[in-house]
Amino acid sequence: MNGPQQFYRYQRRVVYSDCTVGNHVYYSRYLDFLEEARGEFFRNLGIPFLKLQEQGILFPVIEARLTYKAPARYDDVIVIDVAIKELKRLKLAFTYSIWREKTLLLEAETLHVSMNLEEKPSRMPESLASILQSAVLPSPDQPAIISLEPL
Amino acid sequence: MNGPQQFYRYQRRVVYSDCTVGNHVYYSRYLDFLEEARGEFFRNLGIPFLKLQEQGILFPVIEARLTYKAPARYDDVIVIDVAIKELKRLKLAFTYSIWREKTLLLEAETLHVSMNLEEKPSRMPESLASILQSAVLPSPDQPAIISLEPL
Amino acid sequence: MNGPQQFYRYQRRVVYSDCTVGNHVYYSRYLDFLEEARGEFFRNLGIPFLKLQEQGILFPVIEARLTYKAPARYDDVIVIDVAIKELKRLKLAFTYSIWREKTLLLEAETLHVSMNLEEKPSRMPESLASILQSAVLPSPDQPAIISLEPL
Amino acid sequence: MNGPQQFYRYQRRVVYSDCTVGNHVYYSRYLDFLEEARGEFFRNLGIPFLKLQEQGILFPVIEARLTYKAPARYDDVIVIDVAIKELKRLKLAFTYSIWREKTLLLEAETLHVSMNLEEKPSRMPESLASILQSAVLPSPDQPAIISLEPL
Repeated sequence: MNGPQQFYRYQRRVVYSDCTVGNHVYYSRYLDFLEEARGEFFRNLGIPFLKLQEQGILFPVIEARLTYKAPARYDDVIVIDVAIKELKRLKLAFTYSIWREKTLLLEAETLHVSMNLEEKPSRMPESLASILQSAVLPSPDQPAIISLEPL
Repeated sequence: MNGPQQFYRYQRRVVYSDCTVGNHVYYSRYLDFLEEARGEFFRNLGIPFLKLQEQGILFPVIEARLTYKAPARYDDVIVIDVAIKELKRLKLAFTYSIWREKTLLLEAETLHVSMNLEEKPSRMPESLASILQSAVLPSPDQPAIISLEPL
Repeated sequence: MNGPQQFYRYQRRVVYSDCTVGNHVYYSRYLDFLEEARGEFFRNLGIPFLKLQEQGILFPVIEARLTYKAPARYDDVIVIDVAIKELKRLKLAFTYSIWREKTLLLEAETLHVSMNLEEKPSRMPESLASILQSAVLPSPDQPAIISLEPL
Repeated sequence: MNGPQQFYRYQRRVVYSDCTVGNHVYYSRYLDFLEEARGEFFRNLGIPFLKLQEQGILFPVIEARLTYKAPARYDDVIVIDVAIKELKRLKLAFTYSIWREKTLLLEAETLHVSMNLEEKPSRMPESLASILQSAVLPSPDQPAIISLEPL
């Protein structure tokens, strides 16, 4: 399900600034983790965000859904698995799971729109789409929680 | 739709620490705003979180869904409307919308479980449920995005 | 020492996102509080940061010093007293204290340089300096911890 | 000055959640970086914070001083050099510098008190002090900015 051939795996350690009262990661910080993982996922494909931005391409989040399964705690080493679930020229959806060893901590999906620097929706270039296509999950039997309706 | 008789309204200003590159609020910070609003919502009902915690009652988030409509920017005054959408003795769902004047910035729902200090699900006391019941949205025709299945 | 005639007083409540393990405010968040207070201090003088920024004037921090006296905790109502300690055309120093009722939680100073949008030091306009001069603490007998050497 | 034989070096990449308007790291986030580096510094000595905490030993910050030399920006790879500057049984002072390649971005010092779980000052065990002693900077000619007066 989260084999390296499908998901990109990013690892990081939980620090104090991630946590809140009661010794667990604050619920918004998981979105920070997802973005960190997403950044490395793009870099791993040879297209770091910074380069995309210089080409006038942004992927702001327009929808996010998180299911919290178990708390991450201070000093935990967690892994964030990230993959593209669906891809269109105007939108793309990511799917994620966060683990501490064999324990599933969080499942999430984020939906992004392809935008230009004027913050208008703009179809991504064919060349970029084909790179991203290579990272789309092959399993079409599990429908995305977030569906990609035409914008 | 967001009349004061149904929603509790919380106002705050966007500061630099909420923002990121490109002069807009970072996507995880909206969850911080929702929690701030939720805290004041409970206080307004006469049951601040701190008092609940002292009674051994916690409401950790088990699911969150956010739809980003337009970016909030530095120095914006935003209002966060919060209400209870569904209530059971083991779970409750909140619904939110964030506005800058007439512009809708974000819609969200969060689902919470009633827990004790040992982090085990635990039905909330009848007395607390009846206070919260008074703040449940009256409109049953709009089903929650997040459904409250039995735990 | 922190009379309203000298210090501008800003109040806010501590929320979960400010806190970390052990139920206290995380040590970096106090800098967030100081910036929030500084923003309101400028607004109160009729010169909100956003307006200054539109005029090409920025005041980035070049030095900060914090002394932590006692921890702020979740749900505390804290007040942040802020004033200008020293003012020159190229630099200004703020002094702060944070209180929970009669308990001093933090003392701090920040040193800022006057910059233009190209991120180069640039003397602030005379008109702005004279507004800020009205908010300089009158007591010259207590030297600033951070001294304003010529840049 | 920051040779590996004296300073412990920690590396991380700047992400969007670290940044604010104007594409630079927000001024409080550097304290988050210092804590991250400090955590790895202790782990490298074989005494991770979590283990110390289980033994009832905490090192809360009682003073911090930061000098901002140049801004870190999104996607920068930065290194944080950390070492102990002074050590006593009740207090210890760290010194740091943050670099992006050859560019110095920040210099800082933090002063910590040795505390027990009741949040009272408490002399650290001899065994811990001797491990930490091995990581004290050898150069006594540069006095610490923050001096270690008897508590």
